[in-house]
Amino acid sequence: MLTLYTAKGSCGTASHIALEESGLPYEAKLLNLGAGQQRDPDYLRINPKGRVPALITASGVLTENPAILFYIASMASAVDLLPKDDPFAVAAILSFNAYLSSTVHVAHAHGRRGSRWADAPEAIAAMQEKVAENMRASFLLIEDEYLKGEWVMGSGYTIADPYLFTVAGWLKGDGVDIEEFPKVAEHHARMLERPAVQKALAAERG
Amino acid sequence: MLTLYTAKGSCGTASHIALEESGLPYEAKLLNLGAGQQRDPDYLRINPKGRVPALITASGVLTENPAILFYIASMASAVDLLPKDDPFAVAAILSFNAYLSSTVHVAHAHGRRGSRWADAPEAIAAMQEKVAENMRASFLLIEDEYLKGEWVMGSGYTIADPYLFTVAGWLKGDGVDIEEFPKVAEHHARMLERPAVQKALAAERG
Ligand SMILES: N[C@@H](CCC(=O)N[C@@H](CS)C(=O)NCC(=O)O)C(=O)O
Ligand SMILES: N[C@@H](CCC(=O)N[C@@H](CS)C(=O)NCC(=O)O)C(=O)O
Repeated sequence: MLTLYTAKGSCGTASHIALEESGLPYEAKLLNLGAGQQRDPDYLRINPKGRVPALITASGVLTENPAILFYIASMASAVDLLPKDDPFAVAAILSFNAYLSSTVHVAHAHGRRGSRWADAPEAIAAMQEKVAENMRASFLLIEDEYLKGEWVMGSGYTIADPYLFTVAGWLKGDGVDIEEFPKVAEHHARMLERPAVQKALAAERG
Repeated sequence: MLTLYTAKGSCGTASHIALEESGLPYEAKLLNLGAGQQRDPDYLRINPKGRVPALITASGVLTENPAILFYIASMASAVDLLPKDDPFAVAAILSFNAYLSSTVHVAHAHGRRGSRWADAPEAIAAMQEKVAENMRASFLLIEDEYLKGEWVMGSGYTIADPYLFTVAGWLKGDGVDIEEFPKVAEHHARMLERPAVQKALAAERG
C-alpha cells in the first residue's frame, strides 16, 4: 500500500493521477498548504523539505514529482506508463518532466512563493509581474518542440501527461490563456476525459 | 559516438564527468556562455532552450542534466552508475538529482541569472542577497538528510555523485564555505581524487 501526500491544485496532482492510472493500491492524504500543514513537525519527519508531493513506499519515502512518477510507472504492472525497455525513450520522458519541475514549475512559483528568493516586497512584486511572460515562453516551447502528438510522447500515454496537465492547469491563474497553445489545450481537454483524472480531481476537491 | 555540449563551471560538468566514468565513446564540445554561444542559431537547432547541457545520441538529442545522467548510466555497460534492477533505488537517485536541479541549481541561478525572473535591477539585487542563505539551507538538508555515506547513495558511486560535486563547487562563488558541511566537503575531496573527475575538469579548463 502506497501513501501519497499531496494538496489540492499542487504539483502533487500529477503523482495523484499517475497513481490512479497505475492500478496500484494507494491512499491519498491531502495537506492544506494555506494552513501550513506542510511544515507540521509530523510531516517534516516524513518530508524534511516541507513540500508536497511525498510518497511513502515499503522501501522508504520518495519526494520530487519526477522521481515519484518514475517509481509509480516502474511498479505498475497492469499498465504501461513508461517504455521501460528503451533507455532513450525513458530519458526523453525524464527530460520533459525535468523541464516542468526545474523551469516551468519554478516560473509559476515566482508568482506565489517569491519570498523563497527575495525578502523585499518590491522584489516579490517584480517577480509576480514576470510570471505570465515566463509561463508563456515555456508553453510556447512545449507547444512547438516537445508535445509530440495525442499524448506528450506521441501515441502512448506516459507519466509526462499527468504532469503537463497539472502544470498547464496553472496557466489561467498565472494570467495566460491556454488557448494560445492549441496542442496543449487539446491535450488538456483529452486528459479531462480520462476517468483516472476525473477521480483524482474529485478526491482533491473533497 | 555521443556528443555533449557543455560549458566550463556549468551544471553540464556533471554529465561530462558521468560520460568520462561511463567508458562510453564521446566528444565534449565547450560553449562559451559569457559570449552567448548558447543562443547561437546553430546551437538553438540542437537545443531550443538555449542552455547546456545537451547530449546528441544516435536516437536524438537529450537535454536536462537529470535525464542525460540517467541515459548515460543506462547505456554504460562496463560500470554500474545506477542500480538498474531496483526501481526504488533508481527513483531515490532521480529524487536527489531532481532536488539539485529544481531547487539547489535554481537557488544558485538567482545570483547570476536573476533577470530570468524579474526586470527591475533592485529586484535582481534583492535576489542576489538571498543566494547564500538559500544555498546554505539546501546544503544543510543534503548534509543532514540525503548524503548517505562515502557516496551520495551510500557505498556505491552513482550518477548522483558528479551532480552533487558540480553543484557543491558553486558554494564558494555563492559566499558559502563548503566546510560548514563536513560530509559534503569530504565527498568533494573524494570526488577530486577520481581520474574521471580530473580528466573532465582538465578538459573544461582547456
Ligand atoms: N521540486 C519539487 C517541488 C515541490 C513543491 O514546491 N511543492 C509545492 C506545491 S506545488 C509545495 O509543497 N509548496 C508548499 C510550500 O512551499 O510551503 C517537486 O517537483 O516535487
Ligand atoms: N534545468 C536545466 C538547467 C540548464 C541550465 O540552466 N544551464 C545553464 C548553465 S549551468 C545555462 O546554460 N545557462 C545559460 C543561459 O542561461 O543563458 C538542467 O538541469 O540541465
